[in-house]
Amino acid sequence: MEGEGGGKDVTSVKDTSPAPRRGRRPAGHAGREQILEAAISQFGEHGYQATTIRKIGDAAGVNAKLVHYYFGTKEDLFTTAIAETFRSRGFPDLLAEPSPEGAGSPGTRYLSAVLATLEDPGLGPAFLGLVRGLGTHEESRRIFLRFITEELLERLGPQLDTDHGRTRLELAGSQLLGLVLVRYVLKVPPLADFSVQEVARIIGPTIDRYITGDLDWDDNG
Amino acid sequence: MEGEGGGKDVTSVKDTSPAPRRGRRPAGHAGREQILEAAISQFGEHGYQATTIRKIGDAAGVNAKLVHYYFGTKEDLFTTAIAETFRSRGFPDLLAEPSPEGAGSPGTRYLSAVLATLEDPGLGPAFLGLVRGLGTHEESRRIFLRFITEELLERLGPQLDTDHGRTRLELAGSQLLGLVLVRYVLKVPPLADFSVQEVARIIGPTIDRYITGDLDWDDNG
Repeated sequence: MEGEGGGKDVTSVKDTSPAPRRGRRPAGHAGREQILEAAISQFGEHGYQATTIRKIGDAAGVNAKLVHYYFGTKEDLFTTAIAETFRSRGFPDLLAEPSPEGAGSPGTRYLSAVLATLEDPGLGPAFLGLVRGLGTHEESRRIFLRFITEELLERLGPQLDTDHGRTRLELAGSQLLGLVLVRYVLKVPPLADFSVQEVARIIGPTIDRYITGDLDWDDNG
Repeated sequence: MEGEGGGKDVTSVKDTSPAPRRGRRPAGHAGREQILEAAISQFGEHGYQATTIRKIGDAAGVNAKLVHYYFGTKEDLFTTAIAETFRSRGFPDLLAEPSPEGAGSPGTRYLSAVLATLEDPGLGPAFLGLVRGLGTHEESRRIFLRFITEELLERLGPQLDTDHGRTRLELAGSQLLGLVLVRYVLKVPPLADFSVQEVARIIGPTIDRYITGDLDWDDNG
């Protein structure tokens, strides 16, 4: 999380340039990493809908074609951006790992990591924009579905040492999504005012119950 | 739940009329009840945004002014329509009542009553339309907030024999909202395919824990 936009490599590129061009890196120097950083920053600042592949290319100092080459469509790029940010922070795997002693339950740790990411100016605003558009914006709905299906249900489901892995994850996801809406979109107090840790401690056990608890399945469920 | 639009009184009105006018009741005969029924049916069929006070008046066979007179703005009318439907079905009070023996926990009963209402063609579609618009449509956000604040938090909070009544209800609301989104808006299987009873049995204990369980409050919470 090094602020907005510029990655570490920019400095070294600038160092070898005679005079830094205003905010633009010389074409060809930006690789996958830089484009992804630029994308996250653009999505975060302008929201998914107002961001274009061309603007992301501009911000990364590369041609839009190179952005497409690395990441496919805007929808693909956004999905990748969320997934990589979530993975780089070590979840969803957090849910499947046993907790170190004194670190709180897996559900509590998971919740507090997710909420911290959503409150981080890096990816948070873009992700919340996606959540806002779930109900009315077909592309947002599709991206969100793809994200939870690929990154949560399919990736993590088989790792869970339990029956009904997919359903359990979906239950946890339903609580998380509702919390995100109430806290960040509707902003209803008091939940909107609690600290991340407080919310995680209160709701974490719900996540734990869904993932590993004894649930009342139907006989044929 | 007597199908779409027409209430029981319509027949008696028609009986005394020389010839029934096409679908319209004579002006002046429709009271508060009829207007409310027409409103629910119009909101359900066309969604909140496409429905106008004039169309509701037309459907009820009255002047738009009479609709305003009884219910205020469209926003007020919609809020009233949801609130009265929910009240007429006996919740949110379900949450504060002890369960009759063998009827499942209060959380389970509450969930199953709410889901049944949302799946009823009467009010369900209108309410789901509201939920869909939460993130992008300011009026939907405002109506939903008003509904949960007035009907859930303020009405029921003081009835709960517990500390942190408002927070507890908001926690329950967050799980319910997330479930509604996953099941009815995103329609993610397997939760989208479970029966109402099955979902209620699995998620109900979460609602119970939030309402009456031992939650990990902060010392100053």
